[in-house]
Amino acid sequence: MTRLFNDPADFADEATDGFVAANERWVRKVHGGVARATTSPDGTVAVVIGGGSGHYPAFGGLVGPGLAAGAAMGNLFASPSAQQVAGVARAAEHGGGVLLSYGNYAGDVLNFDAAARTLEADGIPVRTVRVTDDVTSAPADDATKRRGIAGDLCVFKVAGAAAEQGRSLDEVTAVAERANDRTQSFGVAFSGCSLPGADEPLFTVPEGRIAIGMGIHGERGIDEADVPTADGLAELLVARLLDELPDGVALDGANGPRVVPILNGLGSVKYEELFVVYRSVQQRLADAGIVIVEPEVGELVTSFDMAGVSLTLFWLDDELEELWAAAADTPAYRKGGAVPQERVDPSTVEADAEAVAIGAASDDSRAVGEQVAAGFAAVRALLDEHADELGRIDAVAGDGDHGIGMQRGAHAAEAAATDAVTSGAGVGSVLRIAADAWSDKAGGTSGAIWGAGLEALGRVLGDDERPSAATVQSAVHAATEAVLAFGATTGDKTMVDALVPFDEVLRTRIDAGASLGEAWTDAVRAAREAADATASLVPKMGRARTHAEQAVGTPDPGAVSFALIVETLAP
Amino acid sequence: MTRLFNDPADFADEATDGFVAANERWVRKVHGGVARATTSPDGTVAVVIGGGSGHYPAFGGLVGPGLAAGAAMGNLFASPSAQQVAGVARAAEHGGGVLLSYGNYAGDVLNFDAAARTLEADGIPVRTVRVTDDVTSAPADDATKRRGIAGDLCVFKVAGAAAEQGRSLDEVTAVAERANDRTQSFGVAFSGCSLPGADEPLFTVPEGRIAIGMGIHGERGIDEADVPTADGLAELLVARLLDELPDGVALDGANGPRVVPILNGLGSVKYEELFVVYRSVQQRLADAGIVIVEPEVGELVTSFDMAGVSLTLFWLDDELEELWAAAADTPAYRKGGAVPQERVDPSTVEADAEAVAIGAASDDSRAVGEQVAAGFAAVRALLDEHADELGRIDAVAGDGDHGIGMQRGAHAAEAAATDAVTSGAGVGSVLRIAADAWSDKAGGTSGAIWGAGLEALGRVLGDDERPSAATVQSAVHAATEAVLAFGATTGDKTMVDALVPFDEVLRTRIDAGASLGEAWTDAVRAAREAADATASLVPKMGRARTHAEQAVGTPDPGAVSFALIVETLAP
Repeated sequence: MTRLFNDPADFADEATDGFVAANERWVRKVHGGVARATTSPDGTVAVVIGGGSGHYPAFGGLVGPGLAAGAAMGNLFASPSAQQVAGVARAAEHGGGVLLSYGNYAGDVLNFDAAARTLEADGIPVRTVRVTDDVTSAPADDATKRRGIAGDLCVFKVAGAAAEQGRSLDEVTAVAERANDRTQSFGVAFSGCSLPGADEPLFTVPEGRIAIGMGIHGERGIDEADVPTADGLAELLVARLLDELPDGVALDGANGPRVVPILNGLGSVKYEELFVVYRSVQQRLADAGIVIVEPEVGELVTSFDMAGVSLTLFWLDDELEELWAAAADTPAYRKGGAVPQERVDPSTVEADAEAVAIGAASDDSRAVGEQVAAGFAAVRALLDEHADELGRIDAVAGDGDHGIGMQRGAHAAEAAATDAVTSGAGVGSVLRIAADAWSDKAGGTSGAIWGAGLEALGRVLGDDERPSAATVQSAVHAATEAVLAFGATTGDKTMVDALVPFDEVLRTRIDAGASLGEAWTDAVRAAREAADATASLVPKMGRARTHAEQAVGTPDPGAVSFALIVETLAP
Repeated sequence: MTRLFNDPADFADEATDGFVAANERWVRKVHGGVARATTSPDGTVAVVIGGGSGHYPAFGGLVGPGLAAGAAMGNLFASPSAQQVAGVARAAEHGGGVLLSYGNYAGDVLNFDAAARTLEADGIPVRTVRVTDDVTSAPADDATKRRGIAGDLCVFKVAGAAAEQGRSLDEVTAVAERANDRTQSFGVAFSGCSLPGADEPLFTVPEGRIAIGMGIHGERGIDEADVPTADGLAELLVARLLDELPDGVALDGANGPRVVPILNGLGSVKYEELFVVYRSVQQRLADAGIVIVEPEVGELVTSFDMAGVSLTLFWLDDELEELWAAAADTPAYRKGGAVPQERVDPSTVEADAEAVAIGAASDDSRAVGEQVAAGFAAVRALLDEHADELGRIDAVAGDGDHGIGMQRGAHAAEAAATDAVTSGAGVGSVLRIAADAWSDKAGGTSGAIWGAGLEALGRVLGDDERPSAATVQSAVHAATEAVLAFGATTGDKTMVDALVPFDEVLRTRIDAGASLGEAWTDAVRAAREAADATASLVPKMGRARTHAEQAVGTPDPGAVSFALIVETLAP
């Protein structure tokens, strides 16, 4: 379990601060994560990686010459926000464009894609390579849906080495894609981890059993078995991966293919155990006529102190082998000889991207802006009170971070809204500025969704008029549309289950002549009933955990937090 | 807990094999551990480190250019044998003498000192620096009695860098001693670890509490407290270490001293937690006017998956800072630019030291030698049967390895004795050859003691005559003297408690004219009664664990195994 923390809500930020303090030879802190502390040749590609925290050395530990140029570091097990990704990419970029590379998870795709659009709008060329190495997470004919786990390192390393050689953005992208196509991983878990401050583990595996194919956030595996011997585990891992060789790799016996094996510990399976398993892995590979090249045995992508282990096989060709063997120098991964290093001159470091602009505003709109800022304060207090409860609900079928994420978002939104009011912003600007702060600090999928919804609200309300009931209703409907654009529909056991009835009742009642206050009260009731009803729905789409099947009686945390918030905000 | 193993008795050997397979860029396997796979300049000092297994990256992970020349790798939590240390030193030595450096534990002192004598007899100059950084393990005015924990790295690194520069053995020794004088550590533990195959943890800490000052094998701490916050732990660690500065270090405010902080995770306290604590550690050091130089935050000396953390402060002077900053390239610790590397030419690798010589023997002595070999087979079968039970008894107040150690020793002795008989050895040579094999493979303190006892037996019995009852009694007495030379006396709750009455009764009865068989039977009874009586003695000298005080009803495993063995060997 995670034992050492201060305020759990500050854990990821404090871990980043301590990581930077301990590793300032390699990294400097930038908005959203870290970038290299050392210079890179002008015109070369910046490989920007990232993901949630809790996976060290992924992702900050892999930043330095020969590997990544920067890492966006999200909250615990939660994607970095689009603002974080863009902030890191702007700081890390040095004239040759940006390759975004990360493990393939819905929240990360959402936020990295949004960042890519922002960066391209700024004139920075961007490409994306998602790592999809986990063979148990989708069938071979649907491999682009697979999750990324320890194979991250192979793709990042190859891309970083190619960038170091001065190759173009398209060339770096092509070689990273080929590395991903030739990298496959398979993992097992013995027990789960607990997030800072949590009383219970995020997920469990029965004593004496292993979950086969479980992901690094407890995602559902494909099978369960008794804990094997070390040799038995090696056999299980090797056999599954040799059963599905990538295109172009064949076991022809005499002059077999060349492979990098990575035996990765997820946290509390320790080095000596990994070595005992590796002894057997390399024997089995050698027996199959495979030539082993520069293996790695250790902790490369972790899941806090989760007990588990994965094997990655990275099938080389001549070019990939040269890039794998190239020198790299990062906090957690070093290889080969000296890599030229000169410290970044602090005076040349560019400022963060501009904040959302505040438009001219009417006095009426400013007055409503003040009410909205007070509303954010109420929401912040509400979420401080309910964060633990929301986290507990989320841990049943999700990754337990909903409470912390919402709390962080609300704190940031309150502060930003207060500042905006002081600067004379109207209600539209207050909401758009708060939206940006919310999604930036909350991270993850829910942060992006709340940011989009609040931004739509602000856009419709504008800075000119005191909004009428009809305008508020239009704004809520625009926010609902913005949220629905992320792809969930009613019945998916998400926030949408409460938002859609809220929007419908609000519209129906206001169309029927009710006051905003009356309509809001009825809409809140509908949202609350719908949120409670999510408890009887089937397990959450695609996110069910080993033990989640028994937990369908738990409501969806996103729907619950939405109902709580609109109740608090009754006009 | 340790989950992945095959036969627990093979764990350490298999882990070494896997470690070498994964890291053949740096290390090659030699008798007793590993040596560098790359050449070192002729005439430079070889820094040879070592200790028990279960502490990775200590010790094999620290072998390579700029750091250690070799590492003796003992069994789980057990010292390497003298033969192992000497074997590694011979393989690693390259003409400039050997510095032996290791954490200060009784079993390691015993075996490294014995190896030093062997090496010096071979004409290799040897010096020793024991690491004594754990401030909680003895008072400041008795600092040479302190244990070595994560401060190992500071001493090894400085010695390795000085050796790399071509300094003389005395110079390397002097700078390593100064590094040790200026290195202090302090640790806490949240929970224990379990050895491979064990059903229960080796030691426990109550839920929600920390053991303050607990060692890396569960050695008794100095206090217990509630689990603190991360900041609270940083305060506890820093305050204790600043309270006892080494000679010559003063906090004078303006231009404070320079220090390397090492925040070390012991296994399942993970990286993000360490970073959160380190954030606070570095703030507190900076607040005290201390200048931080190239810190390390990570897993450097572990204890399987024990949950715990230690802080080391290594107070620099100009020379130590230069040596700390120098390049190094090992499996687990790399720093700075390229270090010249050329692979060792396998044809130049020297053979192991010669085995114990077999002298000419009489037919009578050969016949008794065959009986002794059969006796070793019986002892081996006995220990196979009782290994688990002996381990369980040992885990109460020791480190749980007695069963495995005795089993490994007996297997090796049986094989060596059988070979010796085949080669025509007399009883004296059979015993001396078996003694060497026993202590080599068993390792730890009990391995060294059984080796010395068997060697004395063989020396007295010789290869010429069929031993009389009086000769056997003289031989047993010589073996008893050899064992007593290790320092324990009756009442210390060790094997001596059973051995001394066995020797006394055997002598008294044979002096009184009893046959060897009669006398042996009576002596066995005395040994058995004495072994059982150790259950009522006070906790084992200096080895009591957090929970050992309640366990004084458990007999000493060394006394029990001795009684079992002599009972099996009744002539």
